[in-house]
Amino acid sequence: MTATSEPLPTDLEIARAATLRPLTDVAADLGVRPEHLEPYGRDVAKIDLAVLDEPSTRHPSSATYVVVTAMTPTPLGEGKTTVSVGLAQALQRLGQRATVALRQPSMGPTFGIKGGAAGGGHSQVVPMERLNLHLTGDFHAVTAAHNLLAAMVDNHVHHGNALGLDVRNITWRRVLDVNDRALRNVVVGLGARQDGVARETGFDITAASEVMVLLSLATSLRDLRERLGRIVVGYTTEGRGVTAEDLHAAGAMAALLADALKPNLLQTLEGGPAIIHCGPFGNIATGTSSVTADLVAMRGSDVTITEAGFGADMGAERFFDVKCRVSGLRPDVAVVVATVRALKVHSGAYAVRAGTPLPEGLRREAPDEVEAGLPNLRKHIEIVRRFGVQPVVALNAFPDDHESEHAVVRRFCNRLGVRSAVTRHVAEGGAGALELAQVVMEAAHEPSTFEFLYPLDLPLEQKIEAIATQVYGADGIDVSPAAARALADYERLGYGGLPVVIAKTHLSISSDPTLRGAPRGWRLPVREVRAAVGAGYVYAICGDMRTMPGLPSSPNAERIDIDEDGTVTGLS
Amino acid sequence: MTATSEPLPTDLEIARAATLRPLTDVAADLGVRPEHLEPYGRDVAKIDLAVLDEPSTRHPSSATYVVVTAMTPTPLGEGKTTVSVGLAQALQRLGQRATVALRQPSMGPTFGIKGGAAGGGHSQVVPMERLNLHLTGDFHAVTAAHNLLAAMVDNHVHHGNALGLDVRNITWRRVLDVNDRALRNVVVGLGARQDGVARETGFDITAASEVMVLLSLATSLRDLRERLGRIVVGYTTEGRGVTAEDLHAAGAMAALLADALKPNLLQTLEGGPAIIHCGPFGNIATGTSSVTADLVAMRGSDVTITEAGFGADMGAERFFDVKCRVSGLRPDVAVVVATVRALKVHSGAYAVRAGTPLPEGLRREAPDEVEAGLPNLRKHIEIVRRFGVQPVVALNAFPDDHESEHAVVRRFCNRLGVRSAVTRHVAEGGAGALELAQVVMEAAHEPSTFEFLYPLDLPLEQKIEAIATQVYGADGIDVSPAAARALADYERLGYGGLPVVIAKTHLSISSDPTLRGAPRGWRLPVREVRAAVGAGYVYAICGDMRTMPGLPSSPNAERIDIDEDGTVTGLS
Repeated sequence: MTATSEPLPTDLEIARAATLRPLTDVAADLGVRPEHLEPYGRDVAKIDLAVLDEPSTRHPSSATYVVVTAMTPTPLGEGKTTVSVGLAQALQRLGQRATVALRQPSMGPTFGIKGGAAGGGHSQVVPMERLNLHLTGDFHAVTAAHNLLAAMVDNHVHHGNALGLDVRNITWRRVLDVNDRALRNVVVGLGARQDGVARETGFDITAASEVMVLLSLATSLRDLRERLGRIVVGYTTEGRGVTAEDLHAAGAMAALLADALKPNLLQTLEGGPAIIHCGPFGNIATGTSSVTADLVAMRGSDVTITEAGFGADMGAERFFDVKCRVSGLRPDVAVVVATVRALKVHSGAYAVRAGTPLPEGLRREAPDEVEAGLPNLRKHIEIVRRFGVQPVVALNAFPDDHESEHAVVRRFCNRLGVRSAVTRHVAEGGAGALELAQVVMEAAHEPSTFEFLYPLDLPLEQKIEAIATQVYGADGIDVSPAAARALADYERLGYGGLPVVIAKTHLSISSDPTLRGAPRGWRLPVREVRAAVGAGYVYAICGDMRTMPGLPSSPNAERIDIDEDGTVTGLS
Repeated sequence: MTATSEPLPTDLEIARAATLRPLTDVAADLGVRPEHLEPYGRDVAKIDLAVLDEPSTRHPSSATYVVVTAMTPTPLGEGKTTVSVGLAQALQRLGQRATVALRQPSMGPTFGIKGGAAGGGHSQVVPMERLNLHLTGDFHAVTAAHNLLAAMVDNHVHHGNALGLDVRNITWRRVLDVNDRALRNVVVGLGARQDGVARETGFDITAASEVMVLLSLATSLRDLRERLGRIVVGYTTEGRGVTAEDLHAAGAMAALLADALKPNLLQTLEGGPAIIHCGPFGNIATGTSSVTADLVAMRGSDVTITEAGFGADMGAERFFDVKCRVSGLRPDVAVVVATVRALKVHSGAYAVRAGTPLPEGLRREAPDEVEAGLPNLRKHIEIVRRFGVQPVVALNAFPDDHESEHAVVRRFCNRLGVRSAVTRHVAEGGAGALELAQVVMEAAHEPSTFEFLYPLDLPLEQKIEAIATQVYGADGIDVSPAAARALADYERLGYGGLPVVIAKTHLSISSDPTLRGAPRGWRLPVREVRAAVGAGYVYAICGDMRTMPGLPSSPNAERIDIDEDGTVTGLS
């Protein structure tokens, strides 16, 4: 076992101590010349998408595309972001031109519980303060475009409602990048006649905006403009969808988002390219970074590493069936992140709840508990294999782990014929992930047989059923009457050819957050179905989905400050 | 008279046709070296405030500080921004190192009626699209900091309200940079127990945020941090003010605003430095660009030209009594912008209303109507002189003007001993403002005897009275019982030493928007008084002040679009 007597320095201390490479040098590693780099403050730049029209310096088919996913995580997460960064750093040490493409952190959680997110320890993206506060303003652009459309919806109703919007069926809400529970349910339009039409609505966090996921899926400015026009803001009393194009709002929204479509270049602690772009929610949306980021990375790198949200049941399935369908990119390897603590939790021996610390007992040496949790890991490996992608298990080592526990996982992977590696990238940086990097490259040389789970012309309900049964292992789905009506409406309205996203808990492969391991003998309850027509998918809500978090009683914002020299404290 | 048979190209067409100088060259003209320049996308940069600690290349006392104000404008405005830009361009042609410092346009009006604002014709700041859409994200940072505090207020109440905030006396609202009338009056906190505490509140446009004016008045990061801590968000049932510091929110707000405190460098169409920074409302706030912008400009320029909102009664008075008190800078010259059309309106012969086009009859040659409107201009000249500042009248020529009408104004100024010039900078750029530039430099060489209108230790009510009687020409003030209570409360709470801002109509020197010229025999009704303790002033509301605009029935956003090459149309 490893044990450290001295605590690691904080993430912010490590990040601040780093010496950054000139960003033009980092860009050169990515095959991006200075004329395609638009600096945004110190050590951050946007990459002009014109770079995609330039010939690549290497043959596209020789590029390796790696997605980092995970077993079912504990509420604390099992380190997909740190693994992604550490793996990229290790690959660079092996002489590969490796780029990591990640989501931009949302400021809501930064000021709430998490206090900043950019990897951790010696596997981080820097500059950390910029990454966590505004970055280049893309989230703000999403907020502005989303709320401009909302204002134009209410303005349209106020000025006579020529399109005949049913004010009780306006589905477009407003967004802010802040954890603010008081905005979940609001009544707007109160006051006098000139203050608009009163109606119930609410705010979501910006990461939950359809505009955010739309931006992450758009392949070009033209595609962005067209997707924006297809956004449905609500319905007429006759059940016809009213779009952003109908309201003549999509052009102004696209003008607001044009710069936000360009991916942002930062660097890892070891000076490799890190592309940070978009941050759609992992529950109701895709939970992946952008298509444009991956296209830029794949053009200029030997290996592109990107992350998908939550476990393979959630993030990886959407990465395969939604994002890869749009981008045309085909993944070679899926890294499945596992931890001793998550495996122990999936033994069922511990009660774990979001918002409370993990039980102390998890620190005890207990290889039998790790063994008992393996069915969950096995299920995620099977999900990856179902798509024809090579799995690699990354066992993310924690200081409290024991060798006997690691050995259980290694033996298990060997039995399954799955490559695996223990990785110590948080404590050691890229040097701690060299074994992982090696097995990832080995896996990348296996033949890829990637395939989607379902064809798009399958009816929506059958797509949901395919994911429930073939990915989650459910016996079937139970569709509520309201959901059934919505599905029928969407088929009638022409949305039937869209892929689907299933919004369920990320704390179980099932829809019940208390079920551990790989649950069998359950059915997926589809409570409600909604359409994100502009982004380009239909989503089924199977559980309580919160789209606007609240702050805890002592939010992390209370511990953040800045001194007169501009040094930020308390971010992590 | 001048008449053009061909219409001018649109502002956007002129702006796009301009060849921009490298921004490092523009910065060099301002004495700013590349290491103090932080590029934000193409042709825009932030200026590191560390530049203020560097020795200036010229003696501070030799710098000229010019504020551009106006007579009482029509609802369309009389061109203060274009005069500011044109004057800077003309001064550069005369060999002066001149810098113009202006407010950043709010995106709300850009998508509402105005369609972009950056000067006009051949006197603009470029790049225009960047200026009007996001710029460097400062407004978004204000929105984020403001709404973080709002979330922490409601979160504090939700989690037990240890500070004892009276939920019926929470004065901190939320903000968005959008014209959205439906958000003026809202109820938040609806839903279940975990969704917060229900209460009435509302949203203002970001330009009306106290954080915006606070940012514009802060002299350093330390000062910013301290002012944020002093923001009062509401009161306890015992009448004690609860601050952002009490909520431990001010540190995180300062971290969010640290970059926004740095002024933004752009350029005029003729390649001179233009500093664009902050955009506080002209009615309830100061309506001026930032203190840091002016400090940077004054350090590196022979002449700094800045603008104050609305007429001299409103913007110039606050510029003198609030902004100059904070900055320590002393103005030499106040340019009073006048137009033939505004003078005709002040004859009282025309009914003019906001939101409707100006009457066609204003185009007729009518020197007698111009003559009849002169008392308004005289009053604004007197206001400037009351502060010991040299006035210069800039007669902003329009294509429909007649020589006979210009002659009336020139003779009038000669009689008053006020320098004046006709300026044609919109049609001709700096070349059209050379006479104005010459008389401004002449005026700058007169001895300055600047003085504030009132000392800070005067009671709040007497400060309001001083402005009403000595600036506006009212016979006195009528304080409502509610306003009187608030004034007494504020004196008791220790806010009595703050300067005051009077929120009244900008369409008359009086508080009645229908009164033209220089009204006499009226009293200022003080309906309500509020405290912006963090920004550092108390404001008296004397009329209907709208802090969240609405969109018109056909908003300009409907005409804005972007093509696949990223070319924006419809901005102006």
